[in-house]
Amino acid sequence: MEDKLVLGGKEFKSRFILGSGKYNLNLIKAAVEQGGAEIITLALRRANTQESENILDYIPKGVTLLPNTSGARTAEEAVRIARLSRAMGCGDFVKVEIMRDTKYLFPDNQETIKATEILASEGFVVLPYMNPDLNVARDLQSAGAAAVMPLAAPIGSNRGLAMKAMIQVLIDEIDLPIIVDAGIGKPSQACEAMEMGAAAVMANTAIATAGDVPEMAAAFKLGIEAGRKAYLTGMGRVLARGGSASDPLTGFLR
Amino acid sequence: MEDKLVLGGKEFKSRFILGSGKYNLNLIKAAVEQGGAEIITLALRRANTQESENILDYIPKGVTLLPNTSGARTAEEAVRIARLSRAMGCGDFVKVEIMRDTKYLFPDNQETIKATEILASEGFVVLPYMNPDLNVARDLQSAGAAAVMPLAAPIGSNRGLAMKAMIQVLIDEIDLPIIVDAGIGKPSQACEAMEMGAAAVMANTAIATAGDVPEMAAAFKLGIEAGRKAYLTGMGRVLARGGSASDPLTGFLR
Amino acid sequence: MEDKLVLGGKEFKSRFILGSGKYNLNLIKAAVEQGGAEIITLALRRANTQESENILDYIPKGVTLLPNTSGARTAEEAVRIARLSRAMGCGDFVKVEIMRDTKYLFPDNQETIKATEILASEGFVVLPYMNPDLNVARDLQSAGAAAVMPLAAPIGSNRGLAMKAMIQVLIDEIDLPIIVDAGIGKPSQACEAMEMGAAAVMANTAIATAGDVPEMAAAFKLGIEAGRKAYLTGMGRVLARGGSASDPLTGFLR
Amino acid sequence: MEDKLVLGGKEFKSRFILGSGKYNLNLIKAAVEQGGAEIITLALRRANTQESENILDYIPKGVTLLPNTSGARTAEEAVRIARLSRAMGCGDFVKVEIMRDTKYLFPDNQETIKATEILASEGFVVLPYMNPDLNVARDLQSAGAAAVMPLAAPIGSNRGLAMKAMIQVLIDEIDLPIIVDAGIGKPSQACEAMEMGAAAVMANTAIATAGDVPEMAAAFKLGIEAGRKAYLTGMGRVLARGGSASDPLTGFLR
Repeated sequence: MEDKLVLGGKEFKSRFILGSGKYNLNLIKAAVEQGGAEIITLALRRANTQESENILDYIPKGVTLLPNTSGARTAEEAVRIARLSRAMGCGDFVKVEIMRDTKYLFPDNQETIKATEILASEGFVVLPYMNPDLNVARDLQSAGAAAVMPLAAPIGSNRGLAMKAMIQVLIDEIDLPIIVDAGIGKPSQACEAMEMGAAAVMANTAIATAGDVPEMAAAFKLGIEAGRKAYLTGMGRVLARGGSASDPLTGFLR
Repeated sequence: MEDKLVLGGKEFKSRFILGSGKYNLNLIKAAVEQGGAEIITLALRRANTQESENILDYIPKGVTLLPNTSGARTAEEAVRIARLSRAMGCGDFVKVEIMRDTKYLFPDNQETIKATEILASEGFVVLPYMNPDLNVARDLQSAGAAAVMPLAAPIGSNRGLAMKAMIQVLIDEIDLPIIVDAGIGKPSQACEAMEMGAAAVMANTAIATAGDVPEMAAAFKLGIEAGRKAYLTGMGRVLARGGSASDPLTGFLR
Repeated sequence: MEDKLVLGGKEFKSRFILGSGKYNLNLIKAAVEQGGAEIITLALRRANTQESENILDYIPKGVTLLPNTSGARTAEEAVRIARLSRAMGCGDFVKVEIMRDTKYLFPDNQETIKATEILASEGFVVLPYMNPDLNVARDLQSAGAAAVMPLAAPIGSNRGLAMKAMIQVLIDEIDLPIIVDAGIGKPSQACEAMEMGAAAVMANTAIATAGDVPEMAAAFKLGIEAGRKAYLTGMGRVLARGGSASDPLTGFLR
Repeated sequence: MEDKLVLGGKEFKSRFILGSGKYNLNLIKAAVEQGGAEIITLALRRANTQESENILDYIPKGVTLLPNTSGARTAEEAVRIARLSRAMGCGDFVKVEIMRDTKYLFPDNQETIKATEILASEGFVVLPYMNPDLNVARDLQSAGAAAVMPLAAPIGSNRGLAMKAMIQVLIDEIDLPIIVDAGIGKPSQACEAMEMGAAAVMANTAIATAGDVPEMAAAFKLGIEAGRKAYLTGMGRVLARGGSASDPLTGFLR
């Protein structure tokens, strides 16, 4: 039986999701072709612009769009953006992002719960971006979220799993896919998130700012697959002290 | 131009080396078939036994044997084992392992330098296992080592890159392949070692003790490839404080 | 000018606060005498019991009681406990603790904001226990909190500064004393929290479960004072790579 | 019974040792008066200079001088410096420092063993600076060292306990005082080294480069004392997962 990520009843083979942000057509192409991404996040306003290059024209067939509500400061604004997105033909998926400030761009957990509840009741597949918090994750689940997306570190920081302890609690306690979002800066960190039991990893800045974008997209794909395999097979025990001769024949010469 | 690992003039595509230790035929098969290993470490005495199953019969064609001198307590003993290995037809490669105790199995750096010098002068391709130390790595280079193999953590501990700071110094300062050996317990740790600039990673216990050996071998292969790609392409900057809007369009709704 | 912690207009010399929990009279005595604690947290119901030993009789003169609302699951329950506490003569200080489950005992941030607003408007000096979150800390400040008390790690875990990244953000951004609560297991961790700029550290389990309670109370006192001094004087730069001869005379012999 | 550090038969109450390096008279005064240092390291050539201010004139009565062999590249040079130091009246204590390069200033373990053996046989109290390595520590003990001084991180880097894993092994296995030297940048790191079981901590750069030298000396004194007390009393268990209600009365309201 194949290992699949299921979101809103839809199956995905890839567990790498391209975040929105430092966009250009090369990055999208690399994410899909080298990174194997089947889901691409998009700030709605970008789709809505009159720019000569409409980014929607460049989304490959078979890729699921995940519009986000970036720019919303309240549940009400997020709901409005999501409805507009669906009306424009961007589909039922929506990533709820509600932020109050522009320095750290931390999500507003409480407004996010409200927006999730409204949007889920309207049939959206809701993936809320959140500050990791067990009580909030439970509320998001009750509100009908299809997954929860805790931040690993401040967005764009490339600092890795700074919130690791709380993300592990969510993985252990919440019966929804946990998608690690924001702050992942290297394939090894994406790999570690998957080893912990995350369902998927979202990245953008780490790839967009790499020396070679397609190669870094490929590196994330491999790292995420490595971590998933390791999680599924189960890892060995760790020794806090001492070593252990790995060779049963080890012993000194006589 | 393809990225190759070169040891003793021989080229390898794979940067995963199967360490000796918890051996069985399934592990060797998995390391080669799922892990892509082109080099397999072997405790010499195993090749030399009268066991009904001679392990050498199971080493696939095209795989390079890396006999080690496990069991040696002195340079003299290590040299003797290496010569015997070559005489038995195991080839010119040798991993020098000289240990004094059976609790942590830490290498004896000084005896290792001596053995390396003698064996290199006799035409061996010498890969010495060492406690990471910049002065010792320089001495091993002068002695003719083909690479240096610093330990990441006590062998068999699965504790990961405990000696990371000193391994980074070796990578930065020594003009030889640095092969991270011992203690690597997860694909994410192998990936991180490669991101730092290691030339290859050796593992055994982490794979041998996994729930599914072939799957874990495959996971290590992917993790090592991910880290290598990320190292070659170059990673983005890390923010010590604050975040960074990844989306140039981010800003609040008006 | 002396360095003081100011909470609700009251000045404290000590920055070690005894948390509630694993209580016995020896621990209280040690916290005050060896630890120098001037604030002691107390689960209200304890004060209210008919036990032969009423714990309030053992609180030394000059020590400020900080009753908590432990056991409350909602803002309403927390408010009720706080009012009862004041009516019983326990004073105006209150630590708001609102929890939904008994496994991790994580605070419910949203109910905590509500309770803080009500209690602050009634003249209480409110110290809310919280899951670290910048938006919530801002809301608590607006609600009239006298300080915020983010958890470092799950309560009673002795795991140290697991939430370090987010606690640093609170220290950098919030203009209220940040009191690190829960999870601090060793004096070095309390010291590090103070070096980061925390205003005070609360501990209980780490001291209550030590081999020698008065000695561990004394150790926390010293560690907290060390960290505070280091923070106030300012620490030197850290080198990411390389070393630096500390001796201007260093150089090789000629 | 009082807790004492014993080196070469001499007893010390303080476990903070002032390293050599960024010297000025204020630093020495602060180390002794605020830091409580009873041992001060000194690069021999400084004592030997014709400078108008002879540093020896400023060493307080009752403080033990620990001349080092800084500048020596070989055992022979180190031995020569040590003998000269004793002849000049600097006493029997000597810190063996043998370095080959000026970038990281890492000790040469093998030459250090040789010098230790010669000097110990001549009646010196030898404290060798070393790259942490269990086999080398054993050789230093056999050679007659009075303690071993592993580096925590490259000297002057303020990076803290980068070599923590190997230092813990030395503490667990070697029956000599382990004095953590080089790289300690904050009181919390000195405190942690002591909690691990180190016998003493040497620092210089962290104090010399602080905003207020006497205050930072005092902070190190407190941090070291905190860690020592915690080590002696024994620390509680750490929970890898979950929390633990610290209050036996915790439970929800009925």
